[in-house]
Amino acid sequence: MQMRFDGLLGFPGGFVDRRYWSLEDGLNRVLGLGLGCVRLTEADYLCSHLTEGPHRVVAHFYARQLTLEELHTIEISAVHSRDHGMEVMGMVRVPLYTQKDRMGGLPNFLANSFVGTAKFQLLFALKILNMVPEEKL
Amino acid sequence: MQMRFDGLLGFPGGFVDRRYWSLEDGLNRVLGLGLGCVRLTEADYLCSHLTEGPHRVVAHFYARQLTLEELHTIEISAVHSRDHGMEVMGMVRVPLYTQKDRMGGLPNFLANSFVGTAKFQLLFALKILNMVPEEKL
Repeated sequence: MQMRFDGLLGFPGGFVDRRYWSLEDGLNRVLGLGLGCVRLTEADYLCSHLTEGPHRVVAHFYARQLTLEELHTIEISAVHSRDHGMEVMGMVRVPLYTQKDRMGGLPNFLANSFVGTAKFQLLFALKILNMVPEEKL
Repeated sequence: MQMRFDGLLGFPGGFVDRRYWSLEDGLNRVLGLGLGCVRLTEADYLCSHLTEGPHRVVAHFYARQLTLEELHTIEISAVHSRDHGMEVMGMVRVPLYTQKDRMGGLPNFLANSFVGTAKFQLLFALKILNMVPEEKL
């Protein structure tokens, strides 16, 4: 995930102008500005969510399983990207474990501040992709 | 700052065994593992704080003003460092501004979860180094 310019955690992404782009082309365009090197397709689509509040936004969520090496390549690319230090204050991995004290790891991470539907999207992905045992969520 | 393995935000650093290291040599050793390229001296010392809880720890806090280029060099080095993906889930910049909505930026950032004295250290540094107007803290 990313620490965003507004001090909240969120996923890489952005707005897509449907007049000019398909969802996936628009997504890959904004990912290119922040990550530099990953292309998502319709096969990576997970879910959509209508956000509440004054600005009604439909958030489409995509997820792709990466090897550790691919993730590291993206992390390196991200720190060199156009958005680094502007839209994005840094990229962070999500700890998927829980330490012995029952707080360290994922529970503490979920206690941070998330933008819009990002926390919901994270929990949904962890569940639907079987990344964390359900009793831990 | 860093998103740590335990899901909390904190500063780079670590324990120093005073039998073998001076504070600064020990600090630079642990910084070397996580950042790769910065050396602090006694002149960078800011404050010390005795943490509460079962594990009583004295946290010594150092701060160094960097150019944007130096900061970026450290961010690049950090993503290649030994601790990346282990002790450290990622490095993030702290937004020092407040957006028009009065929450975006530093206020939201401070609502995240911090380890030990890290939030106190951050606020102390922002104040003592005149990095943020005092009425914003």
